[in-house]
Amino acid sequence: MEYDTITAISTPMGEGAIAIVRISGDEAITIAEKIYRGPKAKSLIKADSHTIHYGHLADPKTGETIEEVMVSIMKGPKTFTREDVVEINCHGGMVSVNRVLQLILAQGARLAEPGEFTKRAFLNGRIDLSQAEAVMDLIRAKTDRAMNVALGQMEGRLSKLIGTLRQEILETLAQVEVNIDYPEYDDVEEMTHRLFMEKARYVQQEIEKLLQTSQQGKILREGLSTVIIGRPNVGKSSLLNSLVHENKAIVTDIPGTTRDVIEEYVNVRGVPLRLVDTAGIRETEDIVERIGVERSRAVLKEADLILLVLNYSDDLTPEDENLYQAVMGMDVIVIVNKTDLPGKIDIERVKRLSESHRVVTTSLLEDQGVDELEEAIADLFFQGNLEAGDMTYVSNSRHIALLGQALQAVEDAITAIEAGTPVDLVQIDFTRAWELLGEITGDSVHESLIDQLFSQFCLGK
Amino acid sequence: MEYDTITAISTPMGEGAIAIVRISGDEAITIAEKIYRGPKAKSLIKADSHTIHYGHLADPKTGETIEEVMVSIMKGPKTFTREDVVEINCHGGMVSVNRVLQLILAQGARLAEPGEFTKRAFLNGRIDLSQAEAVMDLIRAKTDRAMNVALGQMEGRLSKLIGTLRQEILETLAQVEVNIDYPEYDDVEEMTHRLFMEKARYVQQEIEKLLQTSQQGKILREGLSTVIIGRPNVGKSSLLNSLVHENKAIVTDIPGTTRDVIEEYVNVRGVPLRLVDTAGIRETEDIVERIGVERSRAVLKEADLILLVLNYSDDLTPEDENLYQAVMGMDVIVIVNKTDLPGKIDIERVKRLSESHRVVTTSLLEDQGVDELEEAIADLFFQGNLEAGDMTYVSNSRHIALLGQALQAVEDAITAIEAGTPVDLVQIDFTRAWELLGEITGDSVHESLIDQLFSQFCLGK
Repeated sequence: MEYDTITAISTPMGEGAIAIVRISGDEAITIAEKIYRGPKAKSLIKADSHTIHYGHLADPKTGETIEEVMVSIMKGPKTFTREDVVEINCHGGMVSVNRVLQLILAQGARLAEPGEFTKRAFLNGRIDLSQAEAVMDLIRAKTDRAMNVALGQMEGRLSKLIGTLRQEILETLAQVEVNIDYPEYDDVEEMTHRLFMEKARYVQQEIEKLLQTSQQGKILREGLSTVIIGRPNVGKSSLLNSLVHENKAIVTDIPGTTRDVIEEYVNVRGVPLRLVDTAGIRETEDIVERIGVERSRAVLKEADLILLVLNYSDDLTPEDENLYQAVMGMDVIVIVNKTDLPGKIDIERVKRLSESHRVVTTSLLEDQGVDELEEAIADLFFQGNLEAGDMTYVSNSRHIALLGQALQAVEDAITAIEAGTPVDLVQIDFTRAWELLGEITGDSVHESLIDQLFSQFCLGK
Repeated sequence: MEYDTITAISTPMGEGAIAIVRISGDEAITIAEKIYRGPKAKSLIKADSHTIHYGHLADPKTGETIEEVMVSIMKGPKTFTREDVVEINCHGGMVSVNRVLQLILAQGARLAEPGEFTKRAFLNGRIDLSQAEAVMDLIRAKTDRAMNVALGQMEGRLSKLIGTLRQEILETLAQVEVNIDYPEYDDVEEMTHRLFMEKARYVQQEIEKLLQTSQQGKILREGLSTVIIGRPNVGKSSLLNSLVHENKAIVTDIPGTTRDVIEEYVNVRGVPLRLVDTAGIRETEDIVERIGVERSRAVLKEADLILLVLNYSDDLTPEDENLYQAVMGMDVIVIVNKTDLPGKIDIERVKRLSESHRVVTTSLLEDQGVDELEEAIADLFFQGNLEAGDMTYVSNSRHIALLGQALQAVEDAITAIEAGTPVDLVQIDFTRAWELLGEITGDSVHESLIDQLFSQFCLGK
C-alpha cells in the first residue's frame, strides 16, 4: 500500500537530553536528505539501511543551521511501519524539537495523527489489531505485571489463541458444508448437529477461560480505582502517605489536566492502585469541615476497592455506620488504625459490621500492619497467585466485550442445536462468533473503528 | 582517559512513543550484548559502528523477555562522549523504560549523574566548557533566538572569540619576555609599556563589546522576569490571558516543583517573557481582598520588567500612585486599559507620572493595543533590532562574571602602565586576564567547579 509521508515528535514533551522526530513514508529519506548537512557531503539516500549519521539540519531556503542531530535511516519493509523510516535524534527541549519538526513539515511531510505510525504497521500487515492495541498498553503500563501482559499481547499471544479458535470454527463450518453438499448418509442432520455441539462446547469453554482472566487483566491494565474513606482524624492521610511512600509511586500527577480529582498510582505487590481524590483526602485532614465526607462519597460509585478506616482508640460512631452503609456490596477492606493508642472500639461489632470483608488492624504511626494490608489487597483480587507467570490475560475492554458477544453467539448456537433448529440457522450463529473474534485481531473490522481506536494513541507512536 | 560505564534514561519522563536509555563507556557494547536477543543470533559486538539493530531485551538470569527494542551501536571516538555508546530505543512509558534501565544496571553499568555524558565529552576533549554549557542552554531554550544563541555557542563561536583574545595576550606576554631577556635597545622599558598598552586597550575593547551583548544574551537565555501589577479590576488577568493566548505559551507549568509562585513563559516577538506569579494574578481578580497588592510587591524586586496597568475609565487613585512609587527606577511599561469605556483618567497626569516610561493604551476586551504593547516590550530590551542575525551573545552568568573580572584585570594593567609600574607587575595583571578568560572555555578551571557545573544538567545528557 502507499500512503503519504508523515512525521511527529515521538518522545514525551519536556526537557530531556534527547528528543526524537520520526518520519515515515516513501519520501522520508528524500525529505531528510534535503535538510541534512553531513560531514564530507555525505548522502543519506545512498546510506545503507539501519545506519546512523551525525550532522546538522539546515533550512534549505535560508541555509540557516537549525540543529545538531543524529539521523537514523531505516528502509522498509524491515521497519516499524514497513515503510521507509527516518528518526532524527536532536537535543531535548521544546524549541529544539519543534524547530526540527517544523523544518520537516516545510519539506512536505504531513503531521501524523495520534497512533498513525502504529496504524500503518497494522494496515501494512506487520501487526494485527490486538498487537497494535498492546503497543499503547505497553506505554501506559503502570506495573511490571501490566507490562508483561501487554508485551505478551504485543508478541501475538492473544492473537494466536483467537486465531486457533477462529480456525476451529472455520473448519467446522467447512465440514458442515461438505456434509450438506454430499449427503452420503441418512443421518447427516444428526451428525452435523453432533459436530456443531461438540465444537460449540469447546469454543464456549475456551472463551470462558479467556474471560476468566479479564477482571485481573483489566486491573493490571487500568489499575484498581481505590478510595480511602473514614471520619476525620482516623488516619486517612497517614494511610495514603504510607501506601505512597512504602511503595514506588508511579505517577503522582498528570500534567495538563484539570485537577478536580487528583490521582496517585502506587504499585502494591504488583497490583496498580489508582488512589482517587488524594488531594481531597490530604485536605480533609486539615480542613475537615470544608469538604466532609460528601466529596468522598461522590467518587465511591466508581471505585473498585474501598479502604474504610476506623479509629481503634475511639468508639464506633453513627458516622462510621453510615460509611459501612455507603459501601455495602462493594470490595472493602476495613482498617482499624491507631492500635498504638488504648483500645476503645468494640472490635467484635466491627467484625459483625464488616461481614465477609477483611479487617486489618494497623498503627500507621508506628508502621504496624501495613504489610498485612498490602497482602489483603493482593489477595482480594488475585487470590495471592499474582506471580503466576506466563498467563495470557485479556485486559482490553474492547476485547472483553467482543469475547462476551462471541460467547453469546456460541451459546445461541448451542441453544439452537438443542432445540433442533435447522443447520443453516445454527451456521449463522457460528459465523457470527467467527466474525466477532475476528474483530479482536482486526481481521474483520470497520474502518471507522480502526480510526477511532488509533486516535486514542499518543502522538508520535 | 578511562572511566567506568554509565547509563541513564535520556528522554523526558512521561508517556511517549519512544524512550531512550543511553550507555557510555568501555563496557557499553558488552553489556548490551548480554541482554540483547536479536534475530539469527546476531552479535552486537561484531556489529559495525553507527548501525541499528532490532530485537528484544531479555534478563540473562531468568530468560524473561523485558522489552522489544532498537539498539544503536556507536563506537568511540566518533560519538558524543568519544567512548563506545549504545542507545536503546524502547517503547515510551515509565515501566518500560525503567525496566530497561534496571536491566542494564544489573549488568554492571553505573547510573550516570546529571550531565555526566556531556562531562565526558568535555573531559575527553570533544568540546570545551562553554560548548558543554551551551548544550544545556539549548535544551532549556525558550525561544528560537535563545536556541540560536546556544547553537552558536555550542558550535564554538564564543570559544573561538575567547581563544583569539587569549592568544593575543599570550603573544604579548611572550614578546615582553623576549624584550626583557634580550634588551638590545635602551628603551626596552618604554617599548614594553607601549606594547602592553596597545594590547591592553585592544583586549579591553573586545571584552567590552562582548559584555555589551550580555544583557540581551541573558534575557534570551533566561527570559525576562515580568510582573503585572495594578489595582483590582483594571484588567491584569485579561492582559495575562491576552499575552499567553496571542503568543505561543512555551511552558505553562514546571512539573514536580512546589508552586508558591507560578510562572508562565510566553514568546513576545522573540523575547521570552517569564510571567511571574500568574496564579496570584488570576486569583486577585476574583479574590482581591485575600491577596491584595502585597504579594505582587514581594516579587517586584526580582523583576526585569514591570507592566503597570491603569484603568482608563476611572480616576487615578492614591493606590495607583503608590504603585508608581513602588516601581521607581525599574523598567516599566504603563498600560492604560479599558479604552472601550468612557475615559475618566487624567492622561496628562499619567504621562507626567510615567516620566520616561512608555505609555500604551489598550482595550484588552476589544483586543486593541496589544500589538503596540508587544512592540514596546521588544523595543525596551532590543531597541527593535532583535533580528540582528549572527551576533555572538554572551548569555551565561558565569561567562559574564568572568568577562567582567578579566576586564577588571586588563584595566588594572592599564592603570599600572599609566602609573609607570614595573613590567613584571603589569605581567601579573595580564596573566590573570588570560587565566580568567580560560575559565570560560575550561582551559584553566578547577575540578570542583566542573562537578558543580555539570550537576545542573538534566539526567541522561
